[in-house]
Amino acid sequence: MVLLSGGMDSATCLALAVREAPPVHALTVAYGQRHDRERRSARALARHFAVARHVELALPLAPILRSALTDPARPLPRGGPRTGRIPSTYVPARNTILLAVALGYAESADLDAIYLGANAIDYSGYPDCRPAFLRAFERVARLGTRRGIDSGRGIAIRAPLLRRSKAGIVRLGERLGVPWGLTWSCYAGGRRPCGRCDACRLRALGFAGARVVDPVAAAGPRTG
Amino acid sequence: MVLLSGGMDSATCLALAVREAPPVHALTVAYGQRHDRERRSARALARHFAVARHVELALPLAPILRSALTDPARPLPRGGPRTGRIPSTYVPARNTILLAVALGYAESADLDAIYLGANAIDYSGYPDCRPAFLRAFERVARLGTRRGIDSGRGIAIRAPLLRRSKAGIVRLGERLGVPWGLTWSCYAGGRRPCGRCDACRLRALGFAGARVVDPVAAAGPRTG
Repeated sequence: MVLLSGGMDSATCLALAVREAPPVHALTVAYGQRHDRERRSARALARHFAVARHVELALPLAPILRSALTDPARPLPRGGPRTGRIPSTYVPARNTILLAVALGYAESADLDAIYLGANAIDYSGYPDCRPAFLRAFERVARLGTRRGIDSGRGIAIRAPLLRRSKAGIVRLGERLGVPWGLTWSCYAGGRRPCGRCDACRLRALGFAGARVVDPVAAAGPRTG
Repeated sequence: MVLLSGGMDSATCLALAVREAPPVHALTVAYGQRHDRERRSARALARHFAVARHVELALPLAPILRSALTDPARPLPRGGPRTGRIPSTYVPARNTILLAVALGYAESADLDAIYLGANAIDYSGYPDCRPAFLRAFERVARLGTRRGIDSGRGIAIRAPLLRRSKAGIVRLGERLGVPWGLTWSCYAGGRRPCGRCDACRLRALGFAGARVVDPVAAAGPRTG
């Protein structure tokens, strides 16, 4: 199964899972983030890759999670990612929550692995994108499930983009035929990408580094 | 903070946390379990112990989690707990999900510890109640949060009832003044305890073992 947000990383993950380990289920969790626009992208991507099942869950977590990403009253950072600091778009325990829900889903549906688009290179500010965190969660998945007891193996956590640069992700996605026009990255939640938030900047760097034209940015305000 | 379901274990945990580490926040998560009656108990207990804040979250997880506890069409086990088998009331990844949401809450509200009423003795069939699972989750809590990076310590996971028998929990609760009449254990979701499901049986064993009269069972059909 794939945790599918609708962004370029999870879209690439989905393309990879569809090739490596079909049939694939996709799970999209809306946890109150302001870039709700991603969900429509997730739907379009699930359709494009003809997944066996696409489940969308709305979890009303915004009232308890303090983050610029879930609170419309807080400004989004626009300075670009900074090394050594955790951005205000960090959502407390987000990947732990997403992986926990995915784990319940995967065990219920008897699936072997959870793919997620976590990336430790370009956005190393997020603690829950680090390799050590993912290994620790895999241990939780083995010890905390019936399947882990029965088989000793649990459910694998796969983050195939973990050590790729954003440009490397674009290059991989190109090879896998990811329809970039269906993906969405901007944090701001407008009808077109703002071109200024960290997600937009990082996306632009990735496409520029891979010398690929981003169909989403091309329709947005930066070149329009 | 305390994960407060409304059952006798989490009520005892709450009483302990209120004594050990005030001020205490309580978090009650309804994940589609059929004993929704517990939520009213949770509210009453939070009021009784005058917690600093009580948050109730409704997470619509029933459609994705396969369990007799979330699916009204599946029968509840009535034979009493069996050693060496995982009961059908096991909810896939339940404690991982609850702890993940609690972790996001605790980090957002800057709280030091999460108390939960997990118990490995009388109900050892649940994989996510085992000490090794809780230690593994504590590692996730340290590696996957901003707080863990900043302080190296993360948020502690406390399961003070982990190695107590059900009778031992009743004795501890008695000393702490737990109002048993406000707690709820029955899985069946009726107005009164069914007296036959595993939760009712285990509760009865605990009170009998501690030689304490259970005010809830006394009002129920078993003696009525």
